[in-house]
Amino acid sequence: MGKGGMSHGNVGEGKDGEEENMAAWLLGVNNLKILPFKLPTLGPHDARIRMKAVGICGSDVHYLKEMKLADFVVTEPMVIGHECAGVVEEVGSEVKHLAPGDRVAIEPGISCWRCALCKEGRYNLCPEMKFFATPPVHGSLANQIVHPADLCFKLPDNVSLEEGAMCEPLSVGVHACRRANVGPETNVLVMGAGPIGLVTMLSARAFGSPRVVIVDVDDHRLSVAKELGADETIKVSTNINDVSAEVEQIKKAMGAGIDITFDCAGFTKTMSTALGATLSGGKVCLVGLGHTEMTVPLAPAAVREVDVVGVFRYKNTWPLCIEFLRSGKIDVKPLITHRFGFSQKEVEEAFETSARGGNAIKVMFNL
Amino acid sequence: MGKGGMSHGNVGEGKDGEEENMAAWLLGVNNLKILPFKLPTLGPHDARIRMKAVGICGSDVHYLKEMKLADFVVTEPMVIGHECAGVVEEVGSEVKHLAPGDRVAIEPGISCWRCALCKEGRYNLCPEMKFFATPPVHGSLANQIVHPADLCFKLPDNVSLEEGAMCEPLSVGVHACRRANVGPETNVLVMGAGPIGLVTMLSARAFGSPRVVIVDVDDHRLSVAKELGADETIKVSTNINDVSAEVEQIKKAMGAGIDITFDCAGFTKTMSTALGATLSGGKVCLVGLGHTEMTVPLAPAAVREVDVVGVFRYKNTWPLCIEFLRSGKIDVKPLITHRFGFSQKEVEEAFETSARGGNAIKVMFNL
Amino acid sequence: MGKGGMSHGNVGEGKDGEEENMAAWLLGVNNLKILPFKLPTLGPHDARIRMKAVGICGSDVHYLKEMKLADFVVTEPMVIGHECAGVVEEVGSEVKHLAPGDRVAIEPGISCWRCALCKEGRYNLCPEMKFFATPPVHGSLANQIVHPADLCFKLPDNVSLEEGAMCEPLSVGVHACRRANVGPETNVLVMGAGPIGLVTMLSARAFGSPRVVIVDVDDHRLSVAKELGADETIKVSTNINDVSAEVEQIKKAMGAGIDITFDCAGFTKTMSTALGATLSGGKVCLVGLGHTEMTVPLAPAAVREVDVVGVFRYKNTWPLCIEFLRSGKIDVKPLITHRFGFSQKEVEEAFETSARGGNAIKVMFNL
Amino acid sequence: MGKGGMSHGNVGEGKDGEEENMAAWLLGVNNLKILPFKLPTLGPHDARIRMKAVGICGSDVHYLKEMKLADFVVTEPMVIGHECAGVVEEVGSEVKHLAPGDRVAIEPGISCWRCALCKEGRYNLCPEMKFFATPPVHGSLANQIVHPADLCFKLPDNVSLEEGAMCEPLSVGVHACRRANVGPETNVLVMGAGPIGLVTMLSARAFGSPRVVIVDVDDHRLSVAKELGADETIKVSTNINDVSAEVEQIKKAMGAGIDITFDCAGFTKTMSTALGATLSGGKVCLVGLGHTEMTVPLAPAAVREVDVVGVFRYKNTWPLCIEFLRSGKIDVKPLITHRFGFSQKEVEEAFETSARGGNAIKVMFNL
Repeated sequence: MGKGGMSHGNVGEGKDGEEENMAAWLLGVNNLKILPFKLPTLGPHDARIRMKAVGICGSDVHYLKEMKLADFVVTEPMVIGHECAGVVEEVGSEVKHLAPGDRVAIEPGISCWRCALCKEGRYNLCPEMKFFATPPVHGSLANQIVHPADLCFKLPDNVSLEEGAMCEPLSVGVHACRRANVGPETNVLVMGAGPIGLVTMLSARAFGSPRVVIVDVDDHRLSVAKELGADETIKVSTNINDVSAEVEQIKKAMGAGIDITFDCAGFTKTMSTALGATLSGGKVCLVGLGHTEMTVPLAPAAVREVDVVGVFRYKNTWPLCIEFLRSGKIDVKPLITHRFGFSQKEVEEAFETSARGGNAIKVMFNL
Repeated sequence: MGKGGMSHGNVGEGKDGEEENMAAWLLGVNNLKILPFKLPTLGPHDARIRMKAVGICGSDVHYLKEMKLADFVVTEPMVIGHECAGVVEEVGSEVKHLAPGDRVAIEPGISCWRCALCKEGRYNLCPEMKFFATPPVHGSLANQIVHPADLCFKLPDNVSLEEGAMCEPLSVGVHACRRANVGPETNVLVMGAGPIGLVTMLSARAFGSPRVVIVDVDDHRLSVAKELGADETIKVSTNINDVSAEVEQIKKAMGAGIDITFDCAGFTKTMSTALGATLSGGKVCLVGLGHTEMTVPLAPAAVREVDVVGVFRYKNTWPLCIEFLRSGKIDVKPLITHRFGFSQKEVEEAFETSARGGNAIKVMFNL
Repeated sequence: MGKGGMSHGNVGEGKDGEEENMAAWLLGVNNLKILPFKLPTLGPHDARIRMKAVGICGSDVHYLKEMKLADFVVTEPMVIGHECAGVVEEVGSEVKHLAPGDRVAIEPGISCWRCALCKEGRYNLCPEMKFFATPPVHGSLANQIVHPADLCFKLPDNVSLEEGAMCEPLSVGVHACRRANVGPETNVLVMGAGPIGLVTMLSARAFGSPRVVIVDVDDHRLSVAKELGADETIKVSTNINDVSAEVEQIKKAMGAGIDITFDCAGFTKTMSTALGATLSGGKVCLVGLGHTEMTVPLAPAAVREVDVVGVFRYKNTWPLCIEFLRSGKIDVKPLITHRFGFSQKEVEEAFETSARGGNAIKVMFNL
Repeated sequence: MGKGGMSHGNVGEGKDGEEENMAAWLLGVNNLKILPFKLPTLGPHDARIRMKAVGICGSDVHYLKEMKLADFVVTEPMVIGHECAGVVEEVGSEVKHLAPGDRVAIEPGISCWRCALCKEGRYNLCPEMKFFATPPVHGSLANQIVHPADLCFKLPDNVSLEEGAMCEPLSVGVHACRRANVGPETNVLVMGAGPIGLVTMLSARAFGSPRVVIVDVDDHRLSVAKELGADETIKVSTNINDVSAEVEQIKKAMGAGIDITFDCAGFTKTMSTALGATLSGGKVCLVGLGHTEMTVPLAPAAVREVDVVGVFRYKNTWPLCIEFLRSGKIDVKPLITHRFGFSQKEVEEAFETSARGGNAIKVMFNL
């Protein structure tokens, strides 16, 4: 299998006399190939979906470049992709809420519903979670997939399939806002204006935050954030010695207490700034994962009862994301900066575009 | 004023023909003197209390040794002491719930009730808080004090004045348990078996925690913890490289998921252990303040939604502490290891005993 | 003292050589007179406010017509009015956040800050509450009043004094939305389109409710509600036998699950409808007080874990109300239907207009 | 099929050469017969359990006497019983936490895990719930049953199978305490000392309630409650006119504020008493279902922000119940007053005993 050094013996074969289902297989470092992908049998509670829009996430690029992410290692060929929406082709015998032709956004993770965390309503923390394109589970950059129907959410007429695919990254922002309890009384600071910083900012707005300030090291990102509705944007440095001065600058820009800070970068410096800037009794929500270990002033924050809240993916976010898109409270369309078709060449170009960063925010496939 | 280099011009003078009220004044580093302390006028909502039991807190010792603690600096002579109970001598005209002769435990902090934090019920975070023996506010190691009557809580017959004074340190444990939401379903790990670790352990028990494991570097402390009711005690090192091994050892000792960890030490190592040992979806509560800055694996904890919860002092804890003492759910008497009278010599000895540590847990004055 | 049969011996006398402060005194049934009102001394934490806008509340009318409301009976002459805003004339020595000339909205209730409920952050339930125009406490329909400065909230330039006075009724809606936990995921049903139903609807919208349906027995009220932003309005009967049919009609109009119902009428019929219409796991919030006793199907609601949540006045609502007005998330101006000056004749006419109902929503004095 | 008037065509037949599985079938009013019951195939996540202890619940008796309960009607022969524990005989291929020979308590309800309520962690409200002995779902009074293994909870050595079966009624009390948020600071009033009142009282104690008062109309029940740990018991009447006097009597017996009242009877009178007796800001939890409609003073409770909280069955209660039994915080053994074997005659006698009431609290089958 060349570059990637892996056999893809389990790459699927299409059935005779039928259209062959193709998918983007991650075979090795920088080795992504469109190859047949055999669909599993449709169960009574499943739906078969024809993919129409699939976005590229930073984690997808990470897997392509390193074949691993955190503790997850790709050891067998794996279909990539997990931000997706499509059209229902077929539903299982027990599925009542969907019919062929329905346009749906897809929640990528299948949890076990047998462990204590699932039963307590925190299924995002399920240790048995099967999640698109998290090894060894296949993803969704394919012509068709089979998925539990209860994870396929019908889109209203005024929400496009591309917007449907954006429900996935948007869910990260929505879940963070829920965990931090953002509402009409909470002024919000966002550290980092990358894709996750932006969806968090949009979510905070949709949850009613009266005032949102966003900071980043990059002028272009800040100008995008400003266009998308930040009240104030502040350019910061990467120098740890600037924390105190920047905390003062940020507080001044907010012009009111900072109730909640989302650290969507996750570095020692951003977290130090977040802990210092947030009001007594407030919360810092750690969303970005720049540094694994951080050297941070936890004690001075703790004695002001500034709590640090973690987030992992999301749960029960699709209905709310779709409602935000339907009502226009959130517009994700400006985040989609690049579009590609589903050919071998375009797939490679698309991932290259996403990896390069620059002006790219969200790179989207139209299948 | 000698050693301390300060005049004590505001040290009170007793009224003619009356008993002179004496207090322990902090005049400089290692300079504590019993001198007259003039009582303020009794307001309509105040009570005048004859002190009977006053405990020494680590912060008292810290002020004596350094004349400062965190951002608080002693620049004027200050009466020390804040863990106290006594007998009501006189009440103001509007006080209905107390009468002379009542035995009361005293909550030391007077908040403003005008700021947003006070009004939201988080008065412990009030920026205008006037707190016993936190400069420039005088403390309570005195024959008598005047204090708002609503901060004086009547003791039941079966709770002694010494136990009443113990409500103050116990309140730290109770507040931590409330913030972390300890209950009959939460297994608790306590890092550190000093006085705060012990009251936190006792509180967790009283809140119903089915299983409490406590760790420390000191064998004697662990044996005390065991006697006071820890299910398991584990001796740990101060070597940061032992974190992984100790996390495994702790998990094994718990024999079940660790829902909540109280870090009552507050060092890089204890916090790293806490973050690693706590179950997904659990909480780490930072109570101890060993290190201001810590180098800790926040990101791996955040992606498991292990939140870090801060605590500052306490609020609304006296009634519950008294109930725990009354019902016998908590017995603080074994924590009182040393007792002293209120003479110049004994005050000096008492502080020396507390500073020395060793077998001393709580050093108590009987006035 | 004629009609009301009461002496007003405690009606204030102006100081010599100064403007005499006048107020609207409730002297007996239907007997309201403008008479001098002596201001108390300004304390260090107080502000003296020149009233500029005072609204009439249903409770004011009720006192005028019956000299009592629930358990409160007017036995001494009492200044009426509690929905108010004005301009600061003078502040006490300790007041930092206000200065003469500031335009402020006024929270009418002074709680004790010594009882358990105050200290826990539920000061609206304080049994010692001193509340404008709730006997024996005087109200604020006066040229000037003296009030604790922390209950006077500065208005931004783009919020008028009349809007400031509207913070009081709006606070009822805001507090109800907070207690019921309205947010961007909760579809809301409002029973009753009177002034309280309308401010509750506006609040639910501002808290992000995606869909609000409102019902009433009166076409005009419903048309006002529709103009103010209700998604759907439904005319209902007063016949208890129509409950089932109307529940179905309401559910159909919502077109989605009803998460929270505010019963702003408070009758057996409205509450029965509310309990039946609300989704399993949802909440019914009882805001209106039509019937004291109700015959309602509590058990069928309880087994669906539909909780009944009560509300009393509000707490900590002024800053949020002002923010909603400043940002334009709520526009209360259309609710002000009638305006009057502060002469004896106009005061009488204003109360008559409010009592008559009809097209009057909020009747406002401009002083 | 005689008395019941129903064919039991679907009553199972045992396989040849194997022990025949027998169950207690409800065939008609007062017609319960032990007949063969065919087990379903064991799925990969299932366990096959040999029943050892099955309790009789009031709902079982109700079905026997009326063939219906609330909206549920028995139209086909149905195996009865749902309070049960047994020994694992066989587990499916994917089951890791159980092995043959394990003693287990069984949670009776299987929810769908696909609806919004399940996913939010409120699976007890699942509209697709399949619950033992709730038509048309068969119950568990049988030699063997097949059940999802994640609903089978291993018992510690010191908890008997009978105690395991008691986890079901105990779960009602535990869930009620969780919903009402009982803890070491909440004084609890329980209305009704029947089986559900008693398990609620035991649960409130185990959650740390410092003071529990229980009322009933029956002296024997009250004496049992006293033996089981009630601080005070009060005999009340069924006369609605006694509410005010009894509220005063109850408050006096509590000697402190009543934070939470559990109405385990659910009549107009008990609910009126509950609403009147509970402290401002407290909660009334409606557990019993005596009356469907009640005529109650909701408004006076609502203006004191006394909320009415409903409960339906339970969720995630087995681990906590088992922990309470293991630790001895709850002892359910005194509740088991009668025991029967699993013969036709004994089954009839057992149900008769339970139906008769009298001194019977819990009637238990030993299979």
